[in-house]
Amino acid sequence: MIKIALIGAGSIVFSGRLVSDLVHAAKAIRGAYVTLMDVSKERLAVVHRLATAYAKKTGASLTFVPTLSREEALRGADFVIHTAFVPGYQRMEAERAIAERLGYYRGLGDRVSDYYGGIGAYAQLRFLLELAEDMERLCPNAWLLVSANPVLEGTTLIGRRTSVRVVGMCHGSAKFWDVVRILGLRPESVEFSVAGLNHCIWLTRFCYEGEDAYPFLDQWLQTEATRFWQSEEYLFNPQNYQMSPAAFALYRMFGLFPIGDTVRSASPWWFHVDLAAKKKWFPAGGVDSEIGWTCRLSENLSLLRKLARVTPEEPPFFHEFFPTAPSAEPHVPFIVARVTGKPTRLVLNVRNEGLIPGLPEDVFVEVPCRVDAASIEPEPVDPLPRRLLLYVLLPRWLRMERVLQAFEDGDRTSLVLEVAEDHRTQSWNQAVQAVEALLALPWNEEARRHYRGPEQGWNWGLPEGDLRKD
Amino acid sequence: MIKIALIGAGSIVFSGRLVSDLVHAAKAIRGAYVTLMDVSKERLAVVHRLATAYAKKTGASLTFVPTLSREEALRGADFVIHTAFVPGYQRMEAERAIAERLGYYRGLGDRVSDYYGGIGAYAQLRFLLELAEDMERLCPNAWLLVSANPVLEGTTLIGRRTSVRVVGMCHGSAKFWDVVRILGLRPESVEFSVAGLNHCIWLTRFCYEGEDAYPFLDQWLQTEATRFWQSEEYLFNPQNYQMSPAAFALYRMFGLFPIGDTVRSASPWWFHVDLAAKKKWFPAGGVDSEIGWTCRLSENLSLLRKLARVTPEEPPFFHEFFPTAPSAEPHVPFIVARVTGKPTRLVLNVRNEGLIPGLPEDVFVEVPCRVDAASIEPEPVDPLPRRLLLYVLLPRWLRMERVLQAFEDGDRTSLVLEVAEDHRTQSWNQAVQAVEALLALPWNEEARRHYRGPEQGWNWGLPEGDLRKD
Repeated sequence: MIKIALIGAGSIVFSGRLVSDLVHAAKAIRGAYVTLMDVSKERLAVVHRLATAYAKKTGASLTFVPTLSREEALRGADFVIHTAFVPGYQRMEAERAIAERLGYYRGLGDRVSDYYGGIGAYAQLRFLLELAEDMERLCPNAWLLVSANPVLEGTTLIGRRTSVRVVGMCHGSAKFWDVVRILGLRPESVEFSVAGLNHCIWLTRFCYEGEDAYPFLDQWLQTEATRFWQSEEYLFNPQNYQMSPAAFALYRMFGLFPIGDTVRSASPWWFHVDLAAKKKWFPAGGVDSEIGWTCRLSENLSLLRKLARVTPEEPPFFHEFFPTAPSAEPHVPFIVARVTGKPTRLVLNVRNEGLIPGLPEDVFVEVPCRVDAASIEPEPVDPLPRRLLLYVLLPRWLRMERVLQAFEDGDRTSLVLEVAEDHRTQSWNQAVQAVEALLALPWNEEARRHYRGPEQGWNWGLPEGDLRKD
Repeated sequence: MIKIALIGAGSIVFSGRLVSDLVHAAKAIRGAYVTLMDVSKERLAVVHRLATAYAKKTGASLTFVPTLSREEALRGADFVIHTAFVPGYQRMEAERAIAERLGYYRGLGDRVSDYYGGIGAYAQLRFLLELAEDMERLCPNAWLLVSANPVLEGTTLIGRRTSVRVVGMCHGSAKFWDVVRILGLRPESVEFSVAGLNHCIWLTRFCYEGEDAYPFLDQWLQTEATRFWQSEEYLFNPQNYQMSPAAFALYRMFGLFPIGDTVRSASPWWFHVDLAAKKKWFPAGGVDSEIGWTCRLSENLSLLRKLARVTPEEPPFFHEFFPTAPSAEPHVPFIVARVTGKPTRLVLNVRNEGLIPGLPEDVFVEVPCRVDAASIEPEPVDPLPRRLLLYVLLPRWLRMERVLQAFEDGDRTSLVLEVAEDHRTQSWNQAVQAVEALLALPWNEEARRHYRGPEQGWNWGLPEGDLRKD
């Protein structure tokens, strides 16, 4: 019997997908024992009730056990799925509001709303590291499947600092199928490959019926794009950004088509300076504007409201919580491939080890892998354009190294230097203020103690007077 | 008889120092044959006349031969010294003025007035590459000593693309002796080491009478700095920046004291936004402000005027052109060490090959080396602070890679992307305009043909309309 621990199971959307995938794969992983772990007893109770009812309804032979104890969830686990978002959306929005008052439209971060666990990603990295250290003790042979952001920073940290077997997972690459659908291609005749860093992956191979399919993109831009970009499907759905002007501009700038969150995260600063810029490059302002992000929060809220109505007396509408087909999440297919040995192609985040020359060996890169019971074999990566490497991948890698250095050294100066390099920063003092304002929030008490400032203060111990000024 | 070729011999300041050093070392390199090569016949005639007269006066057994032919200078040379600044100061100032009108105070570049040969360093890199290719043909065993900027880009390019034996040279590290002098230490009791990239080197070891001397810096800041920074020596001399507030702020920010041009080049963007900022961090505005740079140009001009008065009838005042003691330039000491075999310690730019972990093997780093007839042995480098690597050295390395990629691929998009990342750039169109305005200058005709823009233009082939806007 395999044991799966789902850490952060209170996330309705994510847990819904995973439970659904487990139910669809129930035959392959017959009798799996799934612990649902979260810090919210209420959320956990709802998810557990739904999952159990759904398994019963579908006759899936799965056991779901709720727990508030991470230790209980991890002990003897074979697979640990980490999806927890420690700070939660309310703190995220409070911190964003402070940053906006200090001149940072939509807050600090990676040009998007992917909130990485507060300043310096502290909350997420601390949690992940402790989780991995617990695993070294309680389930040293288990696989850790990390979907919690930041995936690049998190997987690289764990790969460098612990003995845990870790792989990063993101459904972002599945947005490739939006390309196929919108171009009107038959999915079964498509071949593709992607490569890069998480949230920064690029279509390195794209074939249709054995021929290069990139010309379909060029042709679509010339003949279909204008109509598409004026359609309801596009203008009324901020999530529909895969075929946006931003994606095509990136393709032309860097030579490869960007896939999934890449369009948001890897697009340059001038795509994101204000709502007008975002609306130009992304449908309906994109996922990360006040418009798109509010739509997303609103959707989550509506789901939570429906869940609040679920009682043992009133049967849930399963289809509202559980996708009827397998989701695009690679977690369950990964588990099935490991358990049954059936080779499966999955886009995963694994140690680079030369796959992408120019990036260090121990950095986690996102590439298609062949997974079976014995191995996880990354496919070779076609050479990436030098311009893409120099203006996108290496800067993203450098940011990752800075986040990890600040975290590992408890280095507030590094946090401020990184904010100072943000294109919106107008002065050193503005960067200092932003970092100090976020660290001063009551829930950042631990981070405030962790990130020590310089002994001489932000004036670097220089004599008083004019020098104190910015 | 050894043969030395001096390429760019019309540079009065540089040639003055080298001729003086050669005269001082005349015994060691007895009978050396020195070709002075330049494109300016007039300048060459003056330098040649002075050098010959000086050698005669001092009884130095050296032959100086002027030539306008690079081929003649290179044929059979043992050492080739490259100091040529191809575009010249007038074009530099014309291009700076254009950039300033477009929003770039003091022009595009590396936060300083080190002008790298026009947009993308084109003029300097093209000249250097052709010089090295000529050497492969005409003097394949000669050493190429590169002092022409950009030294980092140039040496790395030549090291990667040709078989020429190349070493980079900069007198910047000699500014360390300003530290010693101003702290009031006896030079003979000082030990030191530096490491980094050209114009970005850091005091990795500093000992006085065998003890760590960094506390002298801390103490000086507390007790002497205020008085020093109000002194004439400091306020009236833009070149006196080694012990500036900028240097101490960098020391505190990154953990090591910056040496020489590092204080100018490696200081962050907010030290350089306008004259007020420059004046706060650097004496008299620093070398790179309109104040400091005009002083420098004015000094050069005054020297040229004096030279114009030099005639065979009126003997020159040698001391105005030739330093009476050996200069801080490492060229002649390098030649003497290679010729005589006497081991000599020199700060040089050589292939990294693991000296600084985190930088690629084939990048040229600036470190002390032991030079003798048979070898050039770099000293091991103490580990550099991670924060210094992540916020200073790696970004400078990345800039170098971008400059070389743009040059090698003839890639105008890359030029624009680099300018777009300049902290002063407010929009993509501003970056496009700056690059196009500089390439449109008549003397940049060749560069304009070399750096090809995208076929779809700067709108990336997106449909017309709002999308065209910035």
